[in-house]
Amino acid sequence: MRIIKLTLAYDGTDFVGWQRQADGLSVQGVVEAALAPLDERPVAVAGAGRTDAGVHARGQVASFGLEHAISPSSLVRAINARVPPTVRALSAEHAPEDFHARFSARQKTYRYALLASPIADPFTQRYAWHVADRLDVAAMVDAFRRVEGCHDFSAFQVAGSDVRDTIRTVSAARATVRSLDWCGTQAGRAFVLAFELTGDGFLRHMVRSIIGTVVEVGRGRREPASIDGLLEGAPRSEAGPTAPPQGLCLLRVTY
Amino acid sequence: MRIIKLTLAYDGTDFVGWQRQADGLSVQGVVEAALAPLDERPVAVAGAGRTDAGVHARGQVASFGLEHAISPSSLVRAINARVPPTVRALSAEHAPEDFHARFSARQKTYRYALLASPIADPFTQRYAWHVADRLDVAAMVDAFRRVEGCHDFSAFQVAGSDVRDTIRTVSAARATVRSLDWCGTQAGRAFVLAFELTGDGFLRHMVRSIIGTVVEVGRGRREPASIDGLLEGAPRSEAGPTAPPQGLCLLRVTY
Repeated sequence: MRIIKLTLAYDGTDFVGWQRQADGLSVQGVVEAALAPLDERPVAVAGAGRTDAGVHARGQVASFGLEHAISPSSLVRAINARVPPTVRALSAEHAPEDFHARFSARQKTYRYALLASPIADPFTQRYAWHVADRLDVAAMVDAFRRVEGCHDFSAFQVAGSDVRDTIRTVSAARATVRSLDWCGTQAGRAFVLAFELTGDGFLRHMVRSIIGTVVEVGRGRREPASIDGLLEGAPRSEAGPTAPPQGLCLLRVTY
Repeated sequence: MRIIKLTLAYDGTDFVGWQRQADGLSVQGVVEAALAPLDERPVAVAGAGRTDAGVHARGQVASFGLEHAISPSSLVRAINARVPPTVRALSAEHAPEDFHARFSARQKTYRYALLASPIADPFTQRYAWHVADRLDVAAMVDAFRRVEGCHDFSAFQVAGSDVRDTIRTVSAARATVRSLDWCGTQAGRAFVLAFELTGDGFLRHMVRSIIGTVVEVGRGRREPASIDGLLEGAPRSEAGPTAPPQGLCLLRVTY
């Protein structure tokens, strides 16, 4: 049996998420189904990040064991021939016996994209959260940058979680702003804000609840410095709402 | 009656094209349906470019007459409340009585996007033509630049067209190449090629058949200089195939 490390991209719009569920199409499910004809026993695929419904990935990593001997490039082709076009295997390689996509991961990078404009955009609706309100972008960037470092992120995890250790280290929090390439009609009023977070681990909904809180700052309902207090183990109720899933993308995983 | 100039963006994936047809959803149709409640008589909307099925627009311009007095910004909101999210009215303004979106247009700019990579991409599949073959990008840019100028484009129009005057002036033909922002697995092998054409008029399928021919050059089946001969009134059969619609986008119209 060989352990395979597989890198994948997917548009999460039409999936119930990474993880197999009782009903609905999961990314894990379609990848496992594509591998099924290769091995006699069912192949169980582990993902580095268990992305939620509607969340995308450009560099998700999956691992699994395969009895069947197949070259990594043939494996990529075999998978891509059997999964829908919204999922693409990008590369495969042999990995050490103890490699596990989730447990071996050292760092993950997520990006959250937000379209700040009076009018929505047909081309980013699947990939960005559209916020029509006027936003104080400088205050948002100030607030966002504060999550960098080692903190107790319990205020930024899904309500009702039973995860005990809520300390995580965010090694980089970078924000970029670019004006949207329309035909001049929105000049100066439409921006894509991209928030990139790299860290050793992420609690469920952590990125989305950080962004929901940052948008409250942008709307003037909260001061940028208020983030500091939330990073000392405040309850979930003190942070802002969870931003919608379509703006989130798992960019890469490092080992 | 006031003449309105309306600027629109749309994702053409799910439409039969700009123009109303016996069956299927057209962009013209959904805009006219959105305007119907405003006026007593049906409103006929003219588009600057009659984009085909699957073709997108970031700056389509439409014109129509409206009896009902409504401010341009209220009109934009009224339309956006009634059309699907794949269509957005971006701006509206009052126009002179003799303004017509198509006949008054001086220049149009189209962009064709092509993804050159061994593996497709879930995020560009609706907006770019994926070509998996190895392409000679320098030869393609050379070939593409040759269409600039005043030429007889009869080799680059839809087969069976009865348009007599096939002379058009392309005032700018610009190509840009950028590597695709994946997670490092495709480094140096995945590129988005964007071909932008500005001209005083375009024959039906003109941009797409130019691109189909440019891709033949990229595949080494045709010399870049062979374009020159095609621009002197050659028959359709001597040019390359028509590139698929999803790579094409009407960027802007100038008056």
